[in-house]
Amino acid sequence: MAARPIDFYFDFSSPYAYIASEWIEALAARHGRTVSWRAILLGATFSTTELRTNVSYPLKREYVMVDFERSARFAGVPLTLPQPFPVSTQNAARVFWCLSDSDEARGRQWARHCLRAYFTRGVDLSDNQALAGLGSEFGLEDGQTEAIASNPVWKARLKGVNDAAVAAGVFGVPFFVVDGEPFWGNDRRAQIERWLDKGPF
Amino acid sequence: MAARPIDFYFDFSSPYAYIASEWIEALAARHGRTVSWRAILLGATFSTTELRTNVSYPLKREYVMVDFERSARFAGVPLTLPQPFPVSTQNAARVFWCLSDSDEARGRQWARHCLRAYFTRGVDLSDNQALAGLGSEFGLEDGQTEAIASNPVWKARLKGVNDAAVAAGVFGVPFFVVDGEPFWGNDRRAQIERWLDKGPF
Repeated sequence: MAARPIDFYFDFSSPYAYIASEWIEALAARHGRTVSWRAILLGATFSTTELRTNVSYPLKREYVMVDFERSARFAGVPLTLPQPFPVSTQNAARVFWCLSDSDEARGRQWARHCLRAYFTRGVDLSDNQALAGLGSEFGLEDGQTEAIASNPVWKARLKGVNDAAVAAGVFGVPFFVVDGEPFWGNDRRAQIERWLDKGPF
Repeated sequence: MAARPIDFYFDFSSPYAYIASEWIEALAARHGRTVSWRAILLGATFSTTELRTNVSYPLKREYVMVDFERSARFAGVPLTLPQPFPVSTQNAARVFWCLSDSDEARGRQWARHCLRAYFTRGVDLSDNQALAGLGSEFGLEDGQTEAIASNPVWKARLKGVNDAAVAAGVFGVPFFVVDGEPFWGNDRRAQIERWLDKGPF
């Protein structure tokens, strides 16, 4: 029986999820695992869970603005904090689900394309024109990103994924589920690695 | 010039701070550093920062109850989640500051004595009689823990420490300051180690 995929929940506006997106595939591959990428909207899960983003608290914001970049350097991942930050990412996420539902690899490539664009080049994912530009770079047809983003099918798909994520216990990103075990945060990398190496601990 | 001590902020009721309390001294010693232990009341910093404890959010609570014990096993630290949890820790903290102000090592020993009692034996630190029992085990005189805990001097001292912690940017525990650089969380251990090994990154 094939080993179960690792569920990887991310939001396109989360620096910690971006950092994790740069190491999860290689880590999984070293252990014969695949990764099931799941774009969600952290803001939507927050409204259900009453949680708020790190950057909504002044002291915590001050800290994480240091820690985002330091954690990226620690992981060897290029990151330049974008402005504006954070941004709304529902359109990028809807395009992700549209692509992923017909070809998971293509969805994953779109995710990495957008995450890198936002976190290394500051491309504003909430801007329709900027997102269309990323679509062109990615080989999508003219107008395709806007058509997907405004299509009720993909709005409903994203909402369904969000609701399922909260139902599965997801309250932040990056969030991983490995063999049913939940791991929250880019900083759970070492624990995930130990789990994959030696099993439950 | 001697290397600067590592500031280590903890709350007697935080499992992550307890886990960190078990590794910070050895890590510091390997790099020729000392540790300045600082008991604070997380609840008091929360009221200033509008943050709330992990366990006040149902989904997050469910996760951290798994993660507390898993993170302890990952660090090789014995931990049995106590009941009740969390508890009020102002009395243990006032005794800490009274002891620490005349002898830092003795304060640190008291901190480790109480943290281990709560997190391995379930001794309720909010219970005056239980705290008096820990005082006896520690060699304090009869009635000394209660006398310190109700003394306005140590109440004021702890309040001052809390205010200074928030002013220094502390919003959670464990919180470390190494050469002016802030690190929040038991899971920043690897980053602290790298900082001590090779300097700023």
